[in-house]
Amino acid sequence: MSGVYKITELVGTSPVSFAEAARAAVAEAAKTVRHMDWLEVVGESAKIREGKIEEFQVKVKIGFKLER
Amino acid sequence: MSGVYKITELVGTSPVSFAEAARAAVAEAAKTVRHMDWLEVVGESAKIREGKIEEFQVKVKIGFKLER
Amino acid sequence: MSGVYKITELVGTSPVSFAEAARAAVAEAAKTVRHMDWLEVVGESAKIREGKIEEFQVKVKIGFKLER
Amino acid sequence: MSGVYKITELVGTSPVSFAEAARAAVAEAAKTVRHMDWLEVVGESAKIREGKIEEFQVKVKIGFKLER
Amino acid sequence: MSGVYKITELVGTSPVSFAEAARAAVAEAAKTVRHMDWLEVVGESAKIREGKIEEFQVKVKIGFKLER
Amino acid sequence: MSGVYKITELVGTSPVSFAEAARAAVAEAAKTVRHMDWLEVVGESAKIREGKIEEFQVKVKIGFKLER
Amino acid sequence: MSGVYKITELVGTSPVSFAEAARAAVAEAAKTVRHMDWLEVVGESAKIREGKIEEFQVKVKIGFKLER
Amino acid sequence: MSGVYKITELVGTSPVSFAEAARAAVAEAAKTVRHMDWLEVVGESAKIREGKIEEFQVKVKIGFKLER
Amino acid sequence: MSGVYKITELVGTSPVSFAEAARAAVAEAAKTVRHMDWLEVVGESAKIREGKIEEFQVKVKIGFKLER
Amino acid sequence: MSGVYKITELVGTSPVSFAEAARAAVAEAAKTVRHMDWLEVVGESAKIREGKIEEFQVKVKIGFKLER
Amino acid sequence: MSGVYKITELVGTSPVSFAEAARAAVAEAAKTVRHMDWLEVVGESAKIREGKIEEFQVKVKIGFKLER
Amino acid sequence: MSGVYKITELVGTSPVSFAEAARAAVAEAAKTVRHMDWLEVVGESAKIREGKIEEFQVKVKIGFKLER
Repeated sequence: MSGVYKITELVGTSPVSFAEAARAAVAEAAKTVRHMDWLEVVGESAKIREGKIEEFQVKVKIGFKLER
Repeated sequence: MSGVYKITELVGTSPVSFAEAARAAVAEAAKTVRHMDWLEVVGESAKIREGKIEEFQVKVKIGFKLER
Repeated sequence: MSGVYKITELVGTSPVSFAEAARAAVAEAAKTVRHMDWLEVVGESAKIREGKIEEFQVKVKIGFKLER
Repeated sequence: MSGVYKITELVGTSPVSFAEAARAAVAEAAKTVRHMDWLEVVGESAKIREGKIEEFQVKVKIGFKLER
Repeated sequence: MSGVYKITELVGTSPVSFAEAARAAVAEAAKTVRHMDWLEVVGESAKIREGKIEEFQVKVKIGFKLER
Repeated sequence: MSGVYKITELVGTSPVSFAEAARAAVAEAAKTVRHMDWLEVVGESAKIREGKIEEFQVKVKIGFKLER
Repeated sequence: MSGVYKITELVGTSPVSFAEAARAAVAEAAKTVRHMDWLEVVGESAKIREGKIEEFQVKVKIGFKLER
Repeated sequence: MSGVYKITELVGTSPVSFAEAARAAVAEAAKTVRHMDWLEVVGESAKIREGKIEEFQVKVKIGFKLER
Repeated sequence: MSGVYKITELVGTSPVSFAEAARAAVAEAAKTVRHMDWLEVVGESAKIREGKIEEFQVKVKIGFKLER
Repeated sequence: MSGVYKITELVGTSPVSFAEAARAAVAEAAKTVRHMDWLEVVGESAKIREGKIEEFQVKVKIGFKLER
Repeated sequence: MSGVYKITELVGTSPVSFAEAARAAVAEAAKTVRHMDWLEVVGESAKIREGKIEEFQVKVKIGFKLER
Repeated sequence: MSGVYKITELVGTSPVSFAEAARAAVAEAAKTVRHMDWLEVVGESAKIREGKIEEFQVKVKIGFKLER
């Protein structure tokens, strides 16, 4: 890596798994950000309803290169 | 959320994945606790035997509303 | 557990999931280390390319018993 | 302090302030626990609705002496 | 919660209290962001002048839902 | 380990040493909990009186298997 | 800021609120220290008696400029 | 400081030193942000190639005042 | 506790045990400070020489009441 | 200290005390490593069996000088 | 090291680099403290003015031996 | 990155600067390890003698690819 990178923090959600929740966050970010390079998981949680996990939530920090 | 919530800490286990281990913890808690609302993952580990992961372990904090 | 254990830190990678990345790290370690007993996940990240997660990365600490 | 103490984790809520949210958690705990001795704040958050803080939330750990 | 959320980090200030400083941060964010859902306090500080607290400062992370 | 484990947090005290304070917490827990499996030390402190340590305090998290 | 600053750690207490407890710590420090510039809150706790919060406690680090 | 501040997270890089990497992040931010006030270093790393440090990387949080 | 407390950080050492090292720190502090109330252990380490622990080191924060 | 040091992470165990567990880790390391200089305690835990502490466990990081 | 050590926390500043800021803190401390033995960096920050780093700031904890 | 990486922890030292201390650690590691890819700084400290910084110390974690 060279140049300068910006880090943005998102929470992705999925009824299926933590991995899918991370993918959802990246897919949403891809609509407005280019040159994404990495993500770091900074938190995992879930919503519970009627005694079952209804939704997996993954908080991620995504790094992308700033275009000059 | 309103009112007061209690947080209980559990470790769920599964031979399959971290997600299943989290589900196991929630299923066990559902036997004695009502009104569970969320969980936060506070640790992930695994037992290894003969060079392979035998069991995924997820430590979770589960929040549930206290009934008045 | 009794005796003395050593802890080694590895990063496993997988195009599929965090769980597979953890398994990759353990499989690699099994080539040179015996008596592995547990692992602790100390970080989760991913490589992104062209707006998609290309590779899941899991940083683990693996504990194994020292042979006397 | 002497003897053995148990620690329980609660989230109190209040529309007014963090201090009132902490008081709400203690008041609820007082219904079932005696000999509470101290609390430690381990997290502060809030629910936002229509651009305003609707509810203050304080996560506390409360210590109380076990009766023999 | 479902969908994807973005997290933005702000510092609010107030001569009165930590709670008012948090409200100031939310009020400022409301000028440009819709669908704010929660905030988490990640730091509290204060400016001191002539031996007195002149200004309370609260660092918050605000989560809001991304519109599709 | 397999199944689901619960974690309870206690503070044990002893005039003698940190180790004795940990033992006191376990002994107290043994009155009401079966199948305790491990403890993790999460804090060590002491009470001082007249310039001397009067009491050692150890905060522990104890894990025990839930019976089905 | 320029020059060198010293940081001192205090715990202020108040029956009223966390903010008043912070003010108490600053007022006490003002008796012996000049040129205080900022404080950072590093812990919040409370003493409970008879099921109610009796005293709010705020642990602060205060920074002040060293006079040359 | 008074008013409301926003915090943005960047990674600056430099072949020379950590200080130059921090300067690179600030210079890049200056192209789009005004009223920058402070930065906090939240991580330092480096890329290694052929047994030598090729690039210093500094992760910073930059605070700037929001214009009203 | 009421009033204002000051916290001082010390490292005590002992060839015997961590507990003795903590006692050494308190004994030294008692020469210049009155009204010590509590200590918190914030680090434990040791010096090794010729393959053996030569000295136990305990880093403590000691709280004492400021006299008015 | 001068030169370059390597850090290795071990878990020592003892039925007696945390101090003995640390000594066990150092004794084991001494079989293969020379020039050990210091250790830092990074975790303390215990195994419980039939309501009693059966084994104290201390996780340490040991620093030793690399020979040239 | 043997005996008892005290730890003092300072912030040094420099227009040049983090290393010079650390040196400034040590030089100031040397005016009143003898037998300084080590420092640990616990924070790095900078003041920004007109889009450039104006001042590097390093927060350090300095350990020094207490004279008997 | 793909495959499996190992992480090793070292402390580099230099009389000149933190950057040089990091370089020293990498140079030493290069004698026995190939395919080093990155380092992360996990601690910065210094030895003080006669009121001056005598030696900068940087604790790093170095990641390198395991050869198959």
